[in-house]
Formats: sequence, C-alpha cells, structure tokens
Amino acid sequence: MVSASKSEAAESPIRLGMVGGGQGAFIGAVHRIASRIDGEFQLVAGALSSDPKRAQASARELGIDPERSYDSFAAMAEAEARRDDGIEAVAIVTPNHVHFPAAKAFLEAGIHVICDKPLTSTLADAKKLAALVKESGSLFVLTHNYTGYPMVRQAREMVANGTLGTIRLLHVEYPQDWLTTDLERTGQKQASWRTDPVQSGAGGATGDIGTHAYNLARFVSGLELDTLSADLDAFVEGRRVDDNAHIMLRFKAQESEDGRARPAKGMIWASQVAPGNENALKLRIYGDKGGLEWEQEHPNHLWFAPFGEEKRLITRNGAGALDAASRVSRIPAGHPEGYLEGFANIYSEAARAIRAARQGARPDAAVTYPTVTDGLEGVAFVDACVRSAKANAKWVSLDI
Amino acid sequence: MVSASKSEAAESPIRLGMVGGGQGAFIGAVHRIASRIDGEFQLVAGALSSDPKRAQASARELGIDPERSYDSFAAMAEAEARRDDGIEAVAIVTPNHVHFPAAKAFLEAGIHVICDKPLTSTLADAKKLAALVKESGSLFVLTHNYTGYPMVRQAREMVANGTLGTIRLLHVEYPQDWLTTDLERTGQKQASWRTDPVQSGAGGATGDIGTHAYNLARFVSGLELDTLSADLDAFVEGRRVDDNAHIMLRFKAQESEDGRARPAKGMIWASQVAPGNENALKLRIYGDKGGLEWEQEHPNHLWFAPFGEEKRLITRNGAGALDAASRVSRIPAGHPEGYLEGFANIYSEAARAIRAARQGARPDAAVTYPTVTDGLEGVAFVDACVRSAKANAKWVSLDI
Amino acid sequence: MVSASKSEAAESPIRLGMVGGGQGAFIGAVHRIASRIDGEFQLVAGALSSDPKRAQASARELGIDPERSYDSFAAMAEAEARRDDGIEAVAIVTPNHVHFPAAKAFLEAGIHVICDKPLTSTLADAKKLAALVKESGSLFVLTHNYTGYPMVRQAREMVANGTLGTIRLLHVEYPQDWLTTDLERTGQKQASWRTDPVQSGAGGATGDIGTHAYNLARFVSGLELDTLSADLDAFVEGRRVDDNAHIMLRFKAQESEDGRARPAKGMIWASQVAPGNENALKLRIYGDKGGLEWEQEHPNHLWFAPFGEEKRLITRNGAGALDAASRVSRIPAGHPEGYLEGFANIYSEAARAIRAARQGARPDAAVTYPTVTDGLEGVAFVDACVRSAKANAKWVSLDI
Amino acid sequence: MVSASKSEAAESPIRLGMVGGGQGAFIGAVHRIASRIDGEFQLVAGALSSDPKRAQASARELGIDPERSYDSFAAMAEAEARRDDGIEAVAIVTPNHVHFPAAKAFLEAGIHVICDKPLTSTLADAKKLAALVKESGSLFVLTHNYTGYPMVRQAREMVANGTLGTIRLLHVEYPQDWLTTDLERTGQKQASWRTDPVQSGAGGATGDIGTHAYNLARFVSGLELDTLSADLDAFVEGRRVDDNAHIMLRFKAQESEDGRARPAKGMIWASQVAPGNENALKLRIYGDKGGLEWEQEHPNHLWFAPFGEEKRLITRNGAGALDAASRVSRIPAGHPEGYLEGFANIYSEAARAIRAARQGARPDAAVTYPTVTDGLEGVAFVDACVRSAKANAKWVSLDI
Repeated sequence: MVSASKSEAAESPIRLGMVGGGQGAFIGAVHRIASRIDGEFQLVAGALSSDPKRAQASARELGIDPERSYDSFAAMAEAEARRDDGIEAVAIVTPNHVHFPAAKAFLEAGIHVICDKPLTSTLADAKKLAALVKESGSLFVLTHNYTGYPMVRQAREMVANGTLGTIRLLHVEYPQDWLTTDLERTGQKQASWRTDPVQSGAGGATGDIGTHAYNLARFVSGLELDTLSADLDAFVEGRRVDDNAHIMLRFKAQESEDGRARPAKGMIWASQVAPGNENALKLRIYGDKGGLEWEQEHPNHLWFAPFGEEKRLITRNGAGALDAASRVSRIPAGHPEGYLEGFANIYSEAARAIRAARQGARPDAAVTYPTVTDGLEGVAFVDACVRSAKANAKWVSLDI
Repeated sequence: MVSASKSEAAESPIRLGMVGGGQGAFIGAVHRIASRIDGEFQLVAGALSSDPKRAQASARELGIDPERSYDSFAAMAEAEARRDDGIEAVAIVTPNHVHFPAAKAFLEAGIHVICDKPLTSTLADAKKLAALVKESGSLFVLTHNYTGYPMVRQAREMVANGTLGTIRLLHVEYPQDWLTTDLERTGQKQASWRTDPVQSGAGGATGDIGTHAYNLARFVSGLELDTLSADLDAFVEGRRVDDNAHIMLRFKAQESEDGRARPAKGMIWASQVAPGNENALKLRIYGDKGGLEWEQEHPNHLWFAPFGEEKRLITRNGAGALDAASRVSRIPAGHPEGYLEGFANIYSEAARAIRAARQGARPDAAVTYPTVTDGLEGVAFVDACVRSAKANAKWVSLDI
Repeated sequence: MVSASKSEAAESPIRLGMVGGGQGAFIGAVHRIASRIDGEFQLVAGALSSDPKRAQASARELGIDPERSYDSFAAMAEAEARRDDGIEAVAIVTPNHVHFPAAKAFLEAGIHVICDKPLTSTLADAKKLAALVKESGSLFVLTHNYTGYPMVRQAREMVANGTLGTIRLLHVEYPQDWLTTDLERTGQKQASWRTDPVQSGAGGATGDIGTHAYNLARFVSGLELDTLSADLDAFVEGRRVDDNAHIMLRFKAQESEDGRARPAKGMIWASQVAPGNENALKLRIYGDKGGLEWEQEHPNHLWFAPFGEEKRLITRNGAGALDAASRVSRIPAGHPEGYLEGFANIYSEAARAIRAARQGARPDAAVTYPTVTDGLEGVAFVDACVRSAKANAKWVSLDI
Repeated sequence: MVSASKSEAAESPIRLGMVGGGQGAFIGAVHRIASRIDGEFQLVAGALSSDPKRAQASARELGIDPERSYDSFAAMAEAEARRDDGIEAVAIVTPNHVHFPAAKAFLEAGIHVICDKPLTSTLADAKKLAALVKESGSLFVLTHNYTGYPMVRQAREMVANGTLGTIRLLHVEYPQDWLTTDLERTGQKQASWRTDPVQSGAGGATGDIGTHAYNLARFVSGLELDTLSADLDAFVEGRRVDDNAHIMLRFKAQESEDGRARPAKGMIWASQVAPGNENALKLRIYGDKGGLEWEQEHPNHLWFAPFGEEKRLITRNGAGALDAASRVSRIPAGHPEGYLEGFANIYSEAARAIRAARQGARPDAAVTYPTVTDGLEGVAFVDACVRSAKANAKWVSLDI
C-alpha cells in the first residue's frame, strides 16, 4: 500500500460560483463533487437556474447563502465582482447556448471561468469567446474531463516520448444508447435540450460526445487535423440533430525519424443509438513501434503493445506508470479511481493555475487543462462535420 | 454435460483433392484439419505446389499416394476426372490469382470446388467464375470461414427473427499487426504474395481481411450495400498494396415495422499495421430494439443488449443459444470451440451439400455456406474500395 | 444521461476531527477525500501524528487552524469537547493498536467515532470497545468501505429478496502482491506497522484484508458463521505475521423454502504475496436459483446468473439496478465510480445518522454502515483464524 | 500470418478401437474428433455400448465395419488381437467403473490403451491397473486433456525454468453449474452415471472434475502433495456423491535458491452447483518472482506477472510463446484453438509414442502425456478427499 501521490490543498479554498446546475441537472452535481474532492474550492454563490424559484430552492439545498443566490448570471457577475469576498472563479454548467454570454459576463468582471463543453453552440460565438479570453486577464478552463484521467495522461506522455514511434492510426469511438428512442418527446430534461439545435448547437451526438472524442484524440496524439469526412444521421424519427456520426480523419504530416513526412489517419464514431453502450468512449492509437488502447469504462487500465512483444497492462499508479499519470492519481493501484476523480483533476489543475495567478505567476509546467483554444477547435470540429455531411461527406478543413 | 449437438459422418468420406497448401503454406493445413474434424472428407490427391519437388515432398508428408500427386492443377483435374475413384471435390488454397484458372479447370471436369477467399484477384475473373459456376452442375463453396462460427450463426438468426428491430448500424473492424514492418522484404512467404498485387489483387488488407469483414457484415445483417467511401493507405514504406482501410458504408433502405424505409449505415476498419492486434475481427450491429457484439478471438460468446435491459452473455450451446448455432456446435458450453471448428463447419456444410448432390438433391434448408455470389461481391467490394480511394474517398457502388 | 441519484448535503457540514493520517500515511487521505465528496463534513481539528512536529506540519498542509492541531488524541478529545464549535465526529485512522484508546477517549467525550478497520489489535480490546459503544450515546462507524460500493449493496439486496434462492456457497478472495518481498525491512511505513504484531495485531494479511473479505461475505449474504478452519503462512523470510491465509468456512444452517435447514459453505483466500494482484477482492455467492460475482477492481459491474438463463451484467445505475444500489450512486451508468466514492458512501451514511442523532432520532431505515458489532466480529475472525492455524487448521468458532 | 507449427501425420494412421461412446454419450465423440484432428488415427472397431443394438447402430453411424462392432470389450480385445489388421490402440470412454476391466483386457491383449479419466472407480482397481501397465509392454495414456492446451504447456515450462522463482501458492478452481438441480432424477444419461457411486466412484465433483484440477496443479507446478484437508458436500437433496469440494493443500517442501526448503500451499475448489459457471477451470500459481493465471474458457491466453513489472498477456503462438507451447499449436496467434485441439494434442502425443513403440523406441523427449501414474494419483486424491471429509476435514496423505 503505497502512499497517495496527490497532495491536498494546503491553502484556503478558492471561492467558486456556479451558473446552471439546479435541480434536475446532471453535470452541475458532477462539477460540484469534482470541485470538492481535493478540497480546492468552496461553492459560495450561484445563478443555478433561469427559473428564479428553482434557483433559490437549489441554492438552499446546496447551503449557499440566499443573498448570494442570483436570478441571472449577469446579476451574479456584477454583484460578486463588487464584493471583497466575491467569487474568484465561476463554473458554467448550463445548456450550450448560454456558455458564451455567461462566460463573457464573468470574463469582463475579471472572474476566472471554468466552462463545460462544447465551448459554445455556434462557431461565431466560439471565435468571439476565444478573442475575449485572449484580451482578458482571466483563466479559461474547459472541462473536457476525459483528459483528466491518469491513464490518458500516461498515453499522451508515451506518445510524446516516442514509445509508439511515428503515429499512423488513431481510432476513437464513443457509443452510447440513451437516445435509442425519442426520449426528448417524454420531456426528459437532458434529452430535450441536447436535441434542440438552438440550445445545443448544430451537432447532436457530434457536439455532445463527438467533441469529447475529437478532443481526446488531439490531446493524446498531438496530431493536427488536416481534413475530415463525416456522415451524420438522425436515426430517430423527428429528431432535429444527429444521433450518430461516422467520421474519417486525415491528419497533417508529421516528421518521422527518417525525415520523411507521413500523414496519420483516423476514424471517429460517436453514437447515442447503440444499445448496450452506456458511455463506451474508447481510444486506440498505433505507431510503427507500438500501440495503446484505453477504455473510459475501465479507466485505471491502459493496454500497451510494443510491436513484437507481449501486450502489457499498465495500471494507474502501478508498475510502468509514468509521472504524468501518478501526479494526478490519489490512491494506490488496484483501488479504482473513476469519472469524478478524472473530472476533479481538471478542477485541481485549474486551482493550481488560479493560485499561481493570485501571485501573478504561471502554474508549473506540469499543469495541463483544456483551454478556450481546445474549445474553439471542438466547435469548429462540429461545424466541419455538419458542413461535410451536408456535402455528402466531402473532405473539409476546420474553419479556424 | 450435455451431449454434443452435431452428428458425425455416417457415410464414407468424400474424396478430396487439394491445389496449393504445400510446405510453408498456412491456410492449406487449416483446410486439411477442417476437412478432417467431422470425418467427412479424405484427402487423396494433390497438386500441392507449383514447384514439382515440393509438391511430391508435401504429398509424401501427407500420406497421399505418389501417383495422385500432380505437378499442376490442370493435370490433376484431367486425371482425377477419369478415375472411378477420382476426387469428388477439390480445395483450392493457392495465392489468389490462381483461384480462377484452377476453379475453372475443376468445374469443367465436373468436380465440386471449395475455394479460399477472396474469390479471385481481379473483378473480371470473378465475374467469369460466377458465370462458370452457374453453367456447371457443380457446387462452389467459398471458405469465408468466420460465417461458420456458431455465435455468428446465432447473430444472423437474431437479426433475421427481428430481435434487434430495424437495423441502424453495422460496425466491423478487423485489425492485425503482422505487417507493421516490411516483412515482405525478408522473403517471408505469406507476406510476399499477400503484398504482391499480381498474386493478391489490387487490395492488400482490403482483399485479405477487408473481404472477410464485409462478408461477415452482409452475412449477419442481410443488408445490401448501396455505396461506400474508402480511404486506403500503405503505411509501410514501399508497400505496393494497402495495409490499412477506413471505409464508411451506406446500405439500401429496408422496410421497417412502421412501413418507412430507412437506410442503415456502417463502418469497416481493416488493418495489418495495428500493433497489439493479432486477429481481432469484431462485429457490432445495432437496431432500434437491441444490439449484438461478437469478437472472433472469443468466439464462443455473443453479447446481446436488449434496449433498456441488462446486457446478456449468450454462450455457444448455453442458455439462449438458438438452433442455428447449436446445429454447428460439437461440444457443451464452456468447452471452447475455435477457429478450426468454425472452418470445419464450412466443410461439413459443404459435405452435406455434396452428399445431397450425389442423390441429385439439394441439401436441407439449414445448410449455409458462402457461395460464388458472395465471392463475386467480395471482389467487387475490393474493387469499389480501390476506386473510391483513388477518387479521394468518393462514394461508389459495387460494380456487379 | 439521467440525473444523479444521490442528493448533496443541504445542511451545514459536520465538524470533523482526525486522529492519525499525517504525512506518509495512506488511509488518512482516503478518509479526508471520502468525507469531502458529498460535502457532508469539514475537517477542523486533528491529532495527525504521534510526532508533534509532523502533526503540526500536517495540520498546516490541510488548512487546519494551528490551535486545533493537537499533540495527542487525549488532548484533542478533551479540548474539543469543551468548545462550542467542537468537533461532532472524529475519524481514527491510526495503526490498529491505537484504535481502542483513541475511540475510548472520544466516546467518553461524547463525540461520534468513525474508525478504520480492523476494530482493534486484540480481541480483548474489541470486546471492551463494543461494550463502551453500547453504554455511550455516541455513534460508532467502522469503515469497512467495500460495503459502500453500490453493486455490493445490490448484491446484498438480491440475496435478501430471494433472487438467488437458498444460499449454498460463498467464496471471497482478496489477493494482493505488495508484500511479496520483505518490504518491511526497507522502512516503508505501511509495510512496517502492518507486519508488526504489536501495532497490527496477531493477524497480518488476515487482519489487514481478511477482515474485509469476511465482512463482505457477511454483509452480502447475511449468513452467520458456525466454524472455520484456517491455514496461515508467512512466506517471506522473517515476517512476523501471516502474509497468506487459506480458510474454509461453515455457516449456520438457514431455513430454506421447503423447511429443511441447510448449512452453506465457503472459502476465503487472503494474500499479500500473489504477484500480479493489486487489490483483487472478489466475491462470489451461489444459491439454488442463481449466482452473483463481483470484483472490486471493476466495481460498477455485477454479474448475475439466474440458473438456466444467460448471464447478465448489471451495471451501477443501469437497467436492473435496484434502489439499494442507486441511492448510493452519484452519476449515470457508464461513468465509473470507484473506491473513493464507495468510501464516501460510508461517510455519507454516517452523516445521515449523525444529523438524525442531532435531532435525537434514528436515521431512516435505508442507512447502512458497519458498526462496532461488525468490528468485534472481524477481530474475533482474526483471532479464530490464528487459533485454528496454531491447532493445525482445526475447526473453531468465533469467540464472541 | 505465420505458418502452422505442428506437422501433420506423414505415416499411415494408427488403427484405433473404442469402448463406450455410443449414442447419447458425450466424451466418446470428443475422443473421436480429437483422434481425427491431426490425422493420426483411424477408428476401425468398437464396442460402443453395453446394449448390443445400440452398439451396432452406433457403429453404423460411425462407418465402422459391422463385423468389427462388438458386443463387449472382451470380445473385441480377443478378436482384434487375432487380426493382422487389428487395432493398435483402444480408447476407453465408458463410465469410470468399466475403465479397469476394459483396460486390463486390452493390455493383456497387447493393445495400447488411451483411457478417459479418472483412471478407475476405486483405489484398489487403480493400484492393480498401475501394476498391470508396468508389467505389460503397452502404452497407457490418460486423457487429462487440459494438460494438452498449449498455454498450459507454456505455464509448466515457465515454472520449470524458474521464471516464477520458488513456488509459494497454487490455486485451482473448477466450478460448473450443470448439477445445480437434481438432473439425475430426470434420467439424463450423463448426470445419472456421474452421480452413481457404483459407476462413478466415491467422489462426485471430486472425481469428475476435482481430479482434473488436481492433475493440472501437479502438471504445471511439479509440486508433490504432502497432505490435504477436504470439506465435501452434496447440496442437492438426495444426491449420493459430492457436488462441491473445498480442499486445502500442503505440498512437500522444495529446495529454493537460498538452500532453504519451503513448502508451498494451495487450494482447490470444485463444484457442479455454482450457477453461471459452465466449465470455468482456472489455474493460478505464484512464486517469489512472479505469477501466472490461466482460464480454460479463454485457453489461448496466459497472464504473466513478473513481480514489480506490468502484467503481460502471453498468447498462443504469439510473442513470448515458448517452444513447449508452440510445438502443440497448429495455427497463428489470434486464431483461437479450443478444447478439441487441446484434447487432440494428447492423442497426437500418444500417436508419436505409439509410432516410436512400433520401432521399439521411446518417443522424443518433448512428448508429454498423462500416464497411469498420474491416474493412480488422481484416484488416490479422490480417496484422500473422501477420507478427509469423513474425518471432519482432517489432514490426510495420499494412499499410494
């Protein structure tokens, strides 16, 4: 039983506000748990719902001082910016179309932003937001939480240090089954807004989970996309956004050891209509010297296949685990960490950046979290998929 | 411990010849074992190698009467057709480009043909062969052996009887890693001919394993392809055929329960450069009522996910196994059958058809094996992939 | 994506102190994270180390007010009991031999106790502590954390509701490998005290993990032990406590449906010298109608085999999950929860009991946590194993 | 795709007879397939049933010349011994109590014997048979078929060559579920004789599958048993033999590298009443340098855990496979071989020994098959289990 690798918060918690995440929401609770796990944040204010009554009730449930429960994000940004003990950071966990105006309000108020993905519901908003962040002095953290898993960090490090050789192939699949039927007609809250193009954006499965898949591919491989070809479907009668995406990827050529430039290829499959799949995100990456496989539902394991040798099972905090993985790991191998811990790693990386920022400094080099740039690329990815699909799966580039 | 389901051969074995399969070959030995498992065939003649010395040595090793070891398939077809105890069937297990002339010779000699896949090395040959079979009175069996696995039969039956509802998605992947390096340069026999477009045909991975993937997709789903879009690569420097294929599929619309016609979509990934993958053929098929998943490396298991219920593990000859699976199963659940037994099922189905043909009859309706039509479609699939890839992954139809 | 099932803390957090858990400890950090996950507790005081300097440094790191960092648990119990804002509960996370005196001090000070397992280092202490708890008005929660996993709750419920029929067999194994070599000689802190009979008690693997295995067996099955036969070994040269235990179990007869009483049988294997096993706790339980299998390293899954039907994979918060499981689950199926969440469930159940106790009430009936009685039984189990092993694996009863 | 490793029969097949294995039998068909796979044997005579009509009908179905279908094994031994083309070997696949008289008859007739396990139904018979084999000039092969799996050979070799260091622990479990109910009351043939102590012997699960588990433990480890302690149960009302066995093992001390003798310990669990287990034989063996795990239902894989390094998955004919495994492997890695191929390996090893014996020679050193000595030890194991269980799980030695 080795000691835990990850240190807990020494300093006082960072004061956090939340936009969205009231009763009936899913991801708000996840953000709150993630913010608590390492003791780095304290939730002290909220605009938890666009329905004032629900906002108040939700705040009460969460032990937020009623006077810091706001009816709108605008009111919250303004009021908190004026307080001495005002929030230092805000978590935005609303439907996608609210991300932009909310983030704008807090950035303009000088408050750091932690925002759920995808960045925005339109590419135009994403571009504006990226510009806003650049101008502001505040931090912007996008919760592509799957990049927080220790074994994803391990995979990224193994690619970066050349263990796999030159990368040739990159396969990410993300099948789910919860939208196999027309759940949105039943009034189920999650299904309703996620299949509404106004709230969700032009992509359905593409935006909701395809962006995760794309981000994970990019995060682990470091490869840059050249073009993609996408075939999108809405299999459920009457559904207004895609619920299944087949995507072929072509990456830009990388220099390999022998000096020749070779482009890698890839595939993404994202689906919400594949019965038997709960949240089966899976990454496979292959180079000329070896391959890696990782599954989100068994996140503590990473398969490593050095070409010509036996496959090895690398475990979180076990033999073979690299620093990049162990530094975001809390407990010994064999004691499974899960989704919430991975999510918490994004929050704790954010905390390190925020604490550094308090001193006017940058965080140490190891700190890694998805930024507005990743978010912009994600929205451009959705936009490209939709453009490609409309043009019969034509190869298109990201419009960034 | 229940009794075995599959009966053994009551009648005298069918006299079998073999073309190819001499020393150094891989698939010849597989065919021979497959032909022996149920005691249905006896190997009595061979043209085992194009090198006469190797042919004789190979025949001697296999206990074939030296006078029935031939220097060419042509000589064998002619001589055996004249004997009273001549072969009733021939197994053709040569490199692809020999399939056509050899099959032609035996069909014209009135001898049934069991032929390895892909059918031929060119589409033109495939079309000619299909016509020849039609004209001849002989049987033609193509050893797409993966259709012989009991749980593949089970999957096909579950699709056919509507258990999955209307099919929406079909994913087949077939990654291997044995061509990760330029093995063909070392003189390794399998690598040499399989990467030589003259012997193998225009497709590399596409022809060698992509055809299996496509055939399996068709066999299980019954769906008909409309168009495909293929992105092919030869990642290994100097390789003359593709070693990786990314393919998107669009099937023709099927009538569903509500009378609306909906097209299913699919993806195929075939690769020989994915380190850590030995022979990882995997099929997933999803309808609006449920899904199925099957992996060739664990062939005795089939995952069935009825939408909204727990996933179930159906095992060969276990609870939930249907007749279609049990009739090609030999031993009780928990006693794994493998690749050779699946391959033997094709041979034993062939035997039933040949025995029926002896009486001028057709085999009973349950007998199922891939035919020249499947073979033609397979070669057309390779042709379409190559055409599409050359046209920047344009959507193309099969040229049949 | 369904909403999370588990509600967060509405009321103000419970004030928590900690004994042990300073720098270099493992389980202290686990308790702290577990106490934070649902926002139910706030750590405000500590006697974190028997070394005063380390105690102060550890307190500083954890943001504890220096004046509430104590040099001894006795000082802490006394001082906190006098404060208006004194701790309401204490977490005891020291080596085993300190559990008894520390728990005694806090119980006598009227402070609720949350204590790591095993209960004490000797059976005599365990009996005294059980009596003390009975006399006191305080709650005593033992962190047999594996009982907090949702799928363990599910298994318990399925046994209780008769899904498996009359239980016949109960197998629990708990292999690890971290003590394969004489790690204690290197000065590694965890190995040192866990292999020191004075600090750890008479059992090594038996006490450290065998007690978890036994507790899990009892928790899920409800069966009462009649006798056990144990064969204990210390495979590593010079080790002073057992590092491997083979145990056969005989349970008391249960009444079955037909009125006949039948005793179930079981086996426990606990090992710290089994290379390749990280923390491979596994439970299997079989009745005359079905069986269940659960593995700690894949805690979100529970295999259910109704006799004569296909095996089913029940997932946390997925189809087939019962209320007993979902009420201690936070996020949707497919988003893995892990060890820390299971541990947190014990803390959150404790919180519900403590909040009820504030009102002089009992917690609602669903609240389930291991008590001092379970702890006494665990220590009696170790004692019985050691007695049996000394008498050549003689069958012995628990001395309770 | 590498070539197959195992050569096929060059010489003419060995003439084989069979005792038992008529209609309704399970294991007879398995033996026949196993004898055919490598083309080493030809079945030419049989006493397939004690019921003459069934014997004749079965012979007809199998294409055996009616005049070589006998009403009794005695008649067959006598008549075949007199023929010039008489059988060279006989496969005995009857219920256990017939093994002894049948084997005796053929040994006395100078015919090699291939016999199913367990060797006999009583220890007295086993001892007599061992003596008979010693006196005779004939070979005796016991089909403990699980020793024929390539990865079991690999495990044995890795233990023998010291890869695991000094062995400490050996765990074998063999759970099934087919006797969960009183199937024998339904007249099911397999259940009837296997639960009849007259036909089966004193052990039920112990004899039927416990002997396999014990044999596998011995085969892989080379360890010699010192004593065992067994707790046997018949959980099903009215069952006359055990259907579940819990067994603790103590092996004789082995010399280790440092010259100290240390005894290894082990456990066996054999059950026929564990719902959800089809044929879940599993072996785990741990030394001071590493561990191995193997499961019969996934026989192409062997987990190897060198202590302190990542676990590795060794595959049949893949990287890391040793000669001992590859020489009994037919097809490339990733193409699963199964139960029948493992069984066939015993037959093909027997064939090599028989062919050598034809020349008055011994087979080459690599040939490995279970002998009458293993069989005697297996029956002594059952006897010891039964004696121990009757004496309240007292530690007993094998009576050999």
